[in-house]
This record gives sequence, structure tokens and C-alpha cells, in this order.
Amino acid sequence: MKKIAIVGFGVVGGGVAEILQRNAKIIEKNAGEAIELGYIVDLRDMPDSPFADKMVKDFAVVENDPTVSIVVEAIGGCGAALQFVRRALTAGKSVVTSNKQLVAEHGLELFRLAKEHGVNFLFEASVGGGIPVLNPMTRCLGANELYEVSGILNGTTNYILSQMLEKGESFDGALKNAQKLGYAEANPAADVEGTDAARKSCILAGLAFGGNVAPDDIHVEGITAVTSVDAAFAEAGGMKIKLLGRALVRDGKKYVFVSPHFMKQEQPLACVGDVFNAILVRGSDVGETMFYGPGAGRYPTASAVLGDVIDIVRNPGREQPTGWEAAEEKPASFDTFKARYYIRTREEKALVQQKLGQITWLPDQQGCSGGVTEPCTRAQLKAVGVALDACWPVFE
Amino acid sequence: MKKIAIVGFGVVGGGVAEILQRNAKIIEKNAGEAIELGYIVDLRDMPDSPFADKMVKDFAVVENDPTVSIVVEAIGGCGAALQFVRRALTAGKSVVTSNKQLVAEHGLELFRLAKEHGVNFLFEASVGGGIPVLNPMTRCLGANELYEVSGILNGTTNYILSQMLEKGESFDGALKNAQKLGYAEANPAADVEGTDAARKSCILAGLAFGGNVAPDDIHVEGITAVTSVDAAFAEAGGMKIKLLGRALVRDGKKYVFVSPHFMKQEQPLACVGDVFNAILVRGSDVGETMFYGPGAGRYPTASAVLGDVIDIVRNPGREQPTGWEAAEEKPASFDTFKARYYIRTREEKALVQQKLGQITWLPDQQGCSGGVTEPCTRAQLKAVGVALDACWPVFE
Repeated sequence: MKKIAIVGFGVVGGGVAEILQRNAKIIEKNAGEAIELGYIVDLRDMPDSPFADKMVKDFAVVENDPTVSIVVEAIGGCGAALQFVRRALTAGKSVVTSNKQLVAEHGLELFRLAKEHGVNFLFEASVGGGIPVLNPMTRCLGANELYEVSGILNGTTNYILSQMLEKGESFDGALKNAQKLGYAEANPAADVEGTDAARKSCILAGLAFGGNVAPDDIHVEGITAVTSVDAAFAEAGGMKIKLLGRALVRDGKKYVFVSPHFMKQEQPLACVGDVFNAILVRGSDVGETMFYGPGAGRYPTASAVLGDVIDIVRNPGREQPTGWEAAEEKPASFDTFKARYYIRTREEKALVQQKLGQITWLPDQQGCSGGVTEPCTRAQLKAVGVALDACWPVFE
Repeated sequence: MKKIAIVGFGVVGGGVAEILQRNAKIIEKNAGEAIELGYIVDLRDMPDSPFADKMVKDFAVVENDPTVSIVVEAIGGCGAALQFVRRALTAGKSVVTSNKQLVAEHGLELFRLAKEHGVNFLFEASVGGGIPVLNPMTRCLGANELYEVSGILNGTTNYILSQMLEKGESFDGALKNAQKLGYAEANPAADVEGTDAARKSCILAGLAFGGNVAPDDIHVEGITAVTSVDAAFAEAGGMKIKLLGRALVRDGKKYVFVSPHFMKQEQPLACVGDVFNAILVRGSDVGETMFYGPGAGRYPTASAVLGDVIDIVRNPGREQPTGWEAAEEKPASFDTFKARYYIRTREEKALVQQKLGQITWLPDQQGCSGGVTEPCTRAQLKAVGVALDACWPVFE
């Protein structure tokens, strides 16, 4: 029997407690032994919770109980969460978290702490919610040299873009729908401006290529500049618009960035609609593989957290090689990323073509011209002095 | 350093040897130690192979070398492969295989042998080729009660159906194209008649629900009865036709079968075209997740085999809980499976509707009527005495 503690009894923490109880037999079978909920740490009083007898307010109770071997961090952010995770690891307890900000910003320190104390720090739920992706990528695909890990990493923005393209909604209308359905926060900045996808991209980059990438060091562009005109161009070209977080090696350089992308409808990622997430992994031998599912939500996230807990319980004394090292250099500038680009402009087509070279024009939409360039860099597009109202890579 | 042997130096065995050499550093990093190729066992003379110095003809050399801890079985079938796997496990060596026939037909015996000798018998590559699916399903999703594991498990038939639906090819024309491209064997029976998908479905069912399912005990229908008329109906209804291997629990009963299915284009599986595979997993907490990628091929399959090898090397002395038990009863009869059904008939619509109840008719195609029933069983459809030229479930 292994005892765990849940720190933070909100949406995810509550989900973990509930599944642990409801699926106790399945979990015991898969973990090889029973997993008991020892404590729930939360500052709030919750006398009516079915878990009231487990609740404590002081993390020190968990820290000082040698029978607790795993701590599930479900507070979020980098305040108390960081403090408690440090203390748990230092006390020789493994930690499982879904906190992407914590992993993206403090991963290096926490991997080192875990290693020092011979315990694990696992975070499958931090990318792709319930989708198993970090584990399959680092273990099942462990014989591959990985070239690219790119995906639809934020469900809210995927929902908004899907509504814009498939239902003809405006950005504002789609955002309001997302808020009504509980997909978007009242303050949706972290989603629509790409911050959330950026953190996840840094985690994917770290695991795929082994070097730390700081969210502050990458190009992050959300979907606030995507308009109904762009949606109309995508439709006319048999394409979709997706916000992608990408980590890839191209021309010997490492790129990590978040940007809207155009892509042909035949791309596996193009089929990922609604609030779903998907991560595409390209490797030397597997070729292209994709992991699809719910990128957020109480139970999917808790499912991924418990997958990590089971992994730790099944492998006592084993240190998972999950993590990455400090990096010697920052990712290459997005401006040097060579790709076809979708462009939208109000300048004359002949002039644009004269300056940018061959463009595959799409039928005009709402008085604008739009098309796809031949492979070039954003720096090249900027340098020719044509006013572009939009300029995003085509994912191929 | 761990030493492995490859038994059978064909497409997959050769791929394993090649990747082991080419990606040696990556593999060493992910496995925690170097993996050395000790022997290749093959009856053929291959003096010009770059691995000629590793080649032996007698499996006893591997069997009697205590420094070999893992055997990769890459012979195929259940003849020599079964003998060598038995001998390897008995000699205390872990075995990794991509041989779905071996696992589906002899899994129970081999799991028991592995357990007795404290070694592992792993087979990620046996389902979905390079796609990580068995590991994520049994480990990362280990906190879920699994309800359904269904997928496009055969690339050849998916290619043929995609050509029929998207290019308007006939079955025969599409099959010839598949053979030209090397996707289909000269004798394509195991693919087009569903045998290959059936073996994989039994493996998925065993892992998802814990009980052995024999390929002989399940309903297996391939794609040979799918015609251009069905393709036209699918097109007219905004649907796709996919050959699915399914293992699911419905109405308290376990079903395992292989059959063509109609499905709405919005289904994630509907987007899986060409020769790709994908497996959809539905669980109590994760909801719906899907694993997509190359279902066959030298390097993808070898990638999955080496993922298992790495897993074993990284976890010395650990017995993976991969496998299943003998089952108390066989899966429920496909005739009792309740679903909407696509039907095609040349009888009068009014008569059909009178006998079968509400049908959502599709526009007539080539003088035939086609439509989708309300939820019912195949037994019910058969019992009413309407001649149905086709009758396949709708996947929802």
C-alpha cells in the first residue's frame, strides 16, 4: 500500500481524489498495490466534503509523515505550488503535477532536486491534459531521433477557431460561446494570446531535444489577430487555421514558437476540432504519429495525474529519466524560420508578386487579397516593404 | 551494457539492427545504458550483410549465452517463432515481438512462461505498428475503467477504402494500386478478409478487459463486400467507410469484432486516411483519446520493438504487468450488438420501412436504396425478412 497526499483541492485535486476512490480496484491492479489517499492539503474549510477526514491545512503534516511517498501538486501557479513541491522533493517524496507554468519555468531546478533526493517529478498532465503524450514520446519512441513535436495545445483557442471557420462566428462571438460553455476564463488572455500554449511548447521542446527552453525566449503569437477574412481565405483554399505550439529542428537549428498556422485539410492536425488537443510527433524511424484527446477538464487531467502516480508506485526506487538539461543557446529566431507563408494584404497583387515572388493566390475575400508564398522566412517577407495584414506559416 | 539477439533477419529484424546501430547514442541515453547487438539468428547465409559477424544459424547459441538478456522475435507466424520464444523465456530471457498472430493465439501461454521465469514478454509493435498504443493504454490510462478500444488496425484495407471513397476507384483497382505500392501482399486475404485486424482486436481486448479472446471466437468481416455503391452512399451522407476492429463493453456485455463501419466525417477515426492506422480508446475518466500513425513498415515497426527493448533495459528485474488471463466466457455474439446500421437494399423503400421502422434514407445510388436505421441488432434486421445487400454498424 502506498500513501499519497493531494495539495490543492480544486478542480484537478478533487478529480484525483474522486477517481482514486471510484476506481480503487482498477488502480490497485495496474499499480501492483493499493494507493491510499492520506491527506488533502487546502487552506479552505470544507466540512461537507466526503474527504473531510483527510483534510489538513498545514503542508508540514504531509512533509513530516514518512508514510506519504507521493505528493500530487494541484494548486497551480508558481507561488505556494513551487514552495510545496520543493519541500516535498527535499523530504524524499515524489511529486506529480499538471502545472505547466511550474514545469516550464522551474523544471530545471525541480528535476535536479528530484535527482538529488532519488525521487521522481512527473508531469504528463501538464501537456495535452488527459492525452498520454509525454510518456509515449520519451519512452515508446525512445529509439527515435525526434525532429518535431507540434500540436494544438490549447482547447479554448481551438474551439474559437473551429467556430470561426465552421460556423462563421466572429472572434468575439466565438470567445463568448467559449466562456458560456466554461472553456474560457473570464480573463481569456493566457489562452487567446498563446501563453498557455507557449508553456506547453517549452515542455515538449525540453523533452524532445533535451535542452531547457524558457517561455520568455520564444515567439508567441495567439489568435487575437485572426479575422473572419482569414477564415474565408482558409475555407476558399481547402485549409484550416490552427494555433500551433511547435518545437522542431530545421536546417540544423532548433525552433520553438507559438503561432496561428494555415494547413491543408488532409493534415491529421486539421481534423482536430472543437475543444480537443492533439500533438504530432515526427521522428527518424516512426515517421509521423499523433496523440489526440481532451486537453483539459477535471477527469481527463486527473486521469493523467494518476497515470503518473501509478507509474511511480509500480516502479519503486526507480528514477524516471524524465526531464532536460540547461541549454547552451536559445532557440533560433522565428524570423529565420523557413516555410510557406499565408499572407493577407490590401496592396495590389501585381506589386506584391513582383516583390515577394511567386504567390498562390486564393479567391479574393471581402476586398482583400490572400495567398500562399513559396518557402521563405518572415525576415524576407518583412524586408521587401509590402504591407501585410497577416502573415502566418503553413504547416506541412 | 545489455546484449540482445534478433531472431529472423527480414524486414523488421533488419530494421531493428539498423536503428540500434544508427541511433546508438539516443538509445543509450533513453535506456540508461548501451544496448549491444549480440547475435542475429537466421537460417540464410548473408555474407554481405554489414552484420555478417553477428550471424548464427542455431538458436541454441543465443539460448546458451547468459550474457544475452533480451531476444527480439522477428520471424513471424507461429512455427519456429513460437518454439524460439518458448525457449528464450524458459532460458530467462525477455522477449519482444511484433508478431500479432503469436500474441493473439499463444499469449496466455507466453505470459505464464514469462512470469514463471521472472522476465518480460512485450509486444507494442503487434498492434498499430509504430504507434505507441498498448503502453499508453495500459499504463498512462491505468486509472481508467476502459469501455472501448476500437481502431483502424490494417493499413492496406484503409488505403483501399480511402481510394474507393476519395478517388472513386473500384475495389479491384484500389487493391491493385495497394499491391503496386507494396502495401498489400500478392495474396491479400489476411488483410482484406479482416484476419489481421481480428488478431489485433483480440490483443486490444485482452489488454483492455483482462480476459483472453481467441481470434476464432469473434465475428470477422473484411472489406470484400464493400462496393462503389456503398462508397457513393457514404459520400452522399457525409460519411466514411472504415474497417474497424472493435473491443467494447456495451449493455454489460463484452463485444469483440471486425466489420466495415459507416461513420460521420466528424469522427476522429474518419479523418484517418491512406495507409495510416489509428486506435480510439474510451475510458471512464479520460473520455476519448486517439493514437494515430504508421501501422506497418520496416522502421516504424522496429521503432516500437526498440521502445519495448528500452523499457526492459531501463527497468532491470521488473516484471511488466502486460498481458491478460484466461476468460470465463466468449465475447457476446455480434448479432446482439445494438447500433444504428447502414443498410443497402433493392427492395421497395416503403416495404423496408414498414418492416424495419424508421430509416434515414440517403439519396438513391445506382438504382439501390440505402439508409441508416434506428438503433437495433443485426439479429433483428435479419429476422424481418428484408433482403439486405449490405448491413454494417454506424460507429458513433
